[in-house]
Amino acid sequence: MGFGPVIDELIDALRVLPGVGRKSAQRMALYLLERNRAGAQRLALGLENAAEKIGCCQECQNLSEQEICSMCKDISRDKETICIVESPSDLMAIEQSHHYKGQYFVLKGSLSPLDGRGPNEIGIPKLVSRFKEASIKEVILATNPTIEGEATSHYIAEVLSENNCLITRLAHGLSMGSELGYVDGGTLNHAFSGRKPVLTNE
Amino acid sequence: MGFGPVIDELIDALRVLPGVGRKSAQRMALYLLERNRAGAQRLALGLENAAEKIGCCQECQNLSEQEICSMCKDISRDKETICIVESPSDLMAIEQSHHYKGQYFVLKGSLSPLDGRGPNEIGIPKLVSRFKEASIKEVILATNPTIEGEATSHYIAEVLSENNCLITRLAHGLSMGSELGYVDGGTLNHAFSGRKPVLTNE
Repeated sequence: MGFGPVIDELIDALRVLPGVGRKSAQRMALYLLERNRAGAQRLALGLENAAEKIGCCQECQNLSEQEICSMCKDISRDKETICIVESPSDLMAIEQSHHYKGQYFVLKGSLSPLDGRGPNEIGIPKLVSRFKEASIKEVILATNPTIEGEATSHYIAEVLSENNCLITRLAHGLSMGSELGYVDGGTLNHAFSGRKPVLTNE
Repeated sequence: MGFGPVIDELIDALRVLPGVGRKSAQRMALYLLERNRAGAQRLALGLENAAEKIGCCQECQNLSEQEICSMCKDISRDKETICIVESPSDLMAIEQSHHYKGQYFVLKGSLSPLDGRGPNEIGIPKLVSRFKEASIKEVILATNPTIEGEATSHYIAEVLSENNCLITRLAHGLSMGSELGYVDGGTLNHAFSGRKPVLTNE
């Protein structure tokens, strides 16, 4: 609209970002051009670099610059526990909570046959082969608590059941800071069925 | 956090975009790397192209690929009316309302001495020289209805007063669709003092 093809193309290109619609894209484009050209160039370089250099860790399928990512190389991490997540952002959330110090395996999403994602697409064969190479004592299933995530968990538990290892999944229940009146029924049911004795005088 | 310098740099670079904080930047970076590398490359190219090719129109100071922008070249537009706005995005908003069909002059922001923006910085000399070249009959002051915008309007009106032309400013009053109970006092005052007779039976 009056700015010519180069700016229009930039506005369209910005719309590939999640959560960015036409108006925000226009605002971003004009902001960069009017006030922050250095920022625009830095972003262009960052995008190019990342799109070119970032691949997949050969062991855990996490995004990585190297063939084997820094977490798989890290000898201070527990090698006998492996946590299975659906995506790199799930891994990042777990890492940022600083509790877990074992290995990871990052699926390429959850099983969803209708979207063409079967066991091969999300990397189950690689997960199975990893069990043959390493001695793993515990598998923590940390897929999302959605229908697809639960189905994926069940499938993996079945596939791995012949390996002699403990298979656990993350606890379901109340979120910290939530109010009971606003908690959904499914979560409340999980919280009831997963209730624990309160230890007193110990 | 576990992803290495290339991804961290991409996340930081995405934060130059207005309205994008750490969490959104992380989400954008992972989305692009996991699911839309072609989009990332397109965006990189669009940013580079724009940062390199987009300059300033020599006549109206609007963002433009060419020395003289398409709107200044357009002979179907009224050459005797000029609308003064604070930024390219204001121009875009006016263009998208499809009412005005005259010339523009885009200031580089509003006067703000504390931020180092005086008349020279926002392009007043160029505006004045434009009046010497062209025969302009009406100037429409369309700066923002803020303190800086109003001050800028007053200043321009004074500077241009020696040219023999009509100087007008956009009407202030109620926005379409607003509810009187929620309208601020300043706007209501403007709406009262700018009231017009209702024409009946004509």
